[in-house]
Amino acid sequence: MNAEIIAVGTELLLGQISNTNGQYLSKQLTHHGVNVYKHTVVGDNLLRIRQAIQAAAKANDMVIITGGLGPTEDDVTRNALAEEYDLDLVYDERALQQVESFFQERNQQPSDANRRQALYVQGAQVFQNHTGLACGMVYKHENTMFILLPGPPRELKTMFEKEVDPFLAAQDDTYAFLLSRTLRFYGIGESALEARVHDLIVEQTNPTIAPLAGEDEVTLRLTVRDTDRKNAEKQLDNMEAEICKYCGEFLYGYDDDTLFSKVIEHIKINGWSLATAESLTGGQLGSSITDIAGASEVYQGGAITYSDESKQKQLNVDAATLQQHGSVSQACAREMAEGVRSRYQSDVGISLTGVAGPDDQEGHPPGTLFIGISYPHMNRVYERHLSGDRETIRRRAVKEACAWLLNEEKGD
Amino acid sequence: MNAEIIAVGTELLLGQISNTNGQYLSKQLTHHGVNVYKHTVVGDNLLRIRQAIQAAAKANDMVIITGGLGPTEDDVTRNALAEEYDLDLVYDERALQQVESFFQERNQQPSDANRRQALYVQGAQVFQNHTGLACGMVYKHENTMFILLPGPPRELKTMFEKEVDPFLAAQDDTYAFLLSRTLRFYGIGESALEARVHDLIVEQTNPTIAPLAGEDEVTLRLTVRDTDRKNAEKQLDNMEAEICKYCGEFLYGYDDDTLFSKVIEHIKINGWSLATAESLTGGQLGSSITDIAGASEVYQGGAITYSDESKQKQLNVDAATLQQHGSVSQACAREMAEGVRSRYQSDVGISLTGVAGPDDQEGHPPGTLFIGISYPHMNRVYERHLSGDRETIRRRAVKEACAWLLNEEKGD
Repeated sequence: MNAEIIAVGTELLLGQISNTNGQYLSKQLTHHGVNVYKHTVVGDNLLRIRQAIQAAAKANDMVIITGGLGPTEDDVTRNALAEEYDLDLVYDERALQQVESFFQERNQQPSDANRRQALYVQGAQVFQNHTGLACGMVYKHENTMFILLPGPPRELKTMFEKEVDPFLAAQDDTYAFLLSRTLRFYGIGESALEARVHDLIVEQTNPTIAPLAGEDEVTLRLTVRDTDRKNAEKQLDNMEAEICKYCGEFLYGYDDDTLFSKVIEHIKINGWSLATAESLTGGQLGSSITDIAGASEVYQGGAITYSDESKQKQLNVDAATLQQHGSVSQACAREMAEGVRSRYQSDVGISLTGVAGPDDQEGHPPGTLFIGISYPHMNRVYERHLSGDRETIRRRAVKEACAWLLNEEKGD
Repeated sequence: MNAEIIAVGTELLLGQISNTNGQYLSKQLTHHGVNVYKHTVVGDNLLRIRQAIQAAAKANDMVIITGGLGPTEDDVTRNALAEEYDLDLVYDERALQQVESFFQERNQQPSDANRRQALYVQGAQVFQNHTGLACGMVYKHENTMFILLPGPPRELKTMFEKEVDPFLAAQDDTYAFLLSRTLRFYGIGESALEARVHDLIVEQTNPTIAPLAGEDEVTLRLTVRDTDRKNAEKQLDNMEAEICKYCGEFLYGYDDDTLFSKVIEHIKINGWSLATAESLTGGQLGSSITDIAGASEVYQGGAITYSDESKQKQLNVDAATLQQHGSVSQACAREMAEGVRSRYQSDVGISLTGVAGPDDQEGHPPGTLFIGISYPHMNRVYERHLSGDRETIRRRAVKEACAWLLNEEKGD
């Protein structure tokens, strides 16, 4: 099945926003085995939308059009489809009720423009909008299926998940038993990981294995088609076990896991509490950990010790250590981790000291990094050398710290 | 002048990456007065790239094609243009030298595939790649100007700024005296700002005033066309003064300024030092400030006091304060700011306490925020109520803190 995704919106052509809907829909369709052959972006212009519809209908089984379903004058996507195929626009009762209720709740009357959001082309099946007012729709013309979705990403995603996905599944039995699992790896590059599992990727057709490079990490998405859910699960388990033979030491989580959520989980499972001491990252580790709701159960807090003075005063780093080894050193990282663990009375203390750049510091180039991890009966220090600009080094430094903390568990 | 932007890359159609180049180029071209009528994304496929070229050439004066200039087999953009117009591909000497040098420095030999990055279509003018190896080019066929640029965003941006922009300027005299200034506002919404300067926006043609909503802030970009640079500067000054009559109290900076760079500048200008105390933001304020290279000159460090216990122990917040008012309170914010100023021996201490959500805390809903600012002879506390999810509340909380610190200067 071939598809084109048409995004409608002059703001896209002015560069005010990016076509993130195109990426989201491409991912979803690819996942379902649909071949996306083209993205097109056109402005809020009836004629140009019609031209895009004509061109897309010739070459595709499926055409998804996003945007232009709102209440303003320049929202003309549904009009373009109606004019192109000489169809009437009619009100969907439920969508109209949604518009009326929305305004009634605010003690207002909807205008005719507001009501237009409940219009669909006659013969289409309507998709409900769970997070907004403009309804979506699917309309089949000859061999082409047109799917119209609202432009705001949140509305589009919710409509796709709750309405379009089940609709497509009902069109094709194989959708119902399509099961995916994403394996998340840290500490290995995309090409190195691919080289290790290359034969598996090439040989496998079910489950399929799709590598994808994320920010500082790599994922493999396993997707299986089966008529039985339990069997599908089992096939994913087997494939994961096979993959882990080649690169299991880098696997840290699944699906929506992050290094930060795994750190909190790890600390919680062990019944511990955590404190952080940060120099070059200036609070980014603490911020990343507390991004996760529920962090307060295990995270005591931390010290941002940007100056040498604060390392001494807040974390009891020895003046002699700083003089002899400098603040960018194994010794300083160890004392920072011990210091924060003691000062915040936590079970585990983790520290970061190094050079973010752009300039050298104490004779060390940007990217030099020392990570200290302090437990009640043991201290560890790791030295790493990262590449990249200031922002990249800082971002990767906090991930390195988390990865090492998680690796301890594996007895590495 | 009408333009279409074609992005080449199967990874875009698979949803692995988003077409950020489309947005960037749209912004640049719009800024230059070029009308962008269409974006197209096609895969790494010779035939489909040629079809896209044919269609775009019919309707546009300018066609920008991004991607597909790299060293691998599926990089066929230059081949598509060459085949379409029956042109030879020839090596650019400088680009070839760049490839050779790159590999020599690594004690390697470039392959023929690597050398392909130095090929251009005969008759084109070559654009140098300052951050990569694939050269870009501009080729005129009849009335259409084709501009080929590399896909990696960093390479594309640098090439656009250093090569394409001056080239376009040379094509059209008015480019040479196109001058822009971006005014950055915080604390006022897009529609409220537009309402205040609505008449100016409508009346003005030179300079033009373009409002744009950024993340948590709004900008106005003033662009003037003039044959004299000094005169252009003066027109921008006058327009800025006019705008500031209506919303000057929200203006915090220009062009690449951020609230964080302005805070550092503010502290530095006053000869002060700064320390931070964070509860709900968990280190994000410290992290944002230390994102700016040079922060170490004024930033002492800070305490992340996520638990009540750590607020008492690390910042000397009174147990009675916590019991009587709770940690989400004016009193706690004040004591945190005083505490961190004293503990880190800084001139200014700034604190954040509140509720990030998703749950209520101490009876306060998510978004409740107290900001404390402590100077040697004065303390201030601000209460704010933010809306949004956990991530938004945390992000905006650190910006609110910075905005208030900067506002103090204005005697607000």
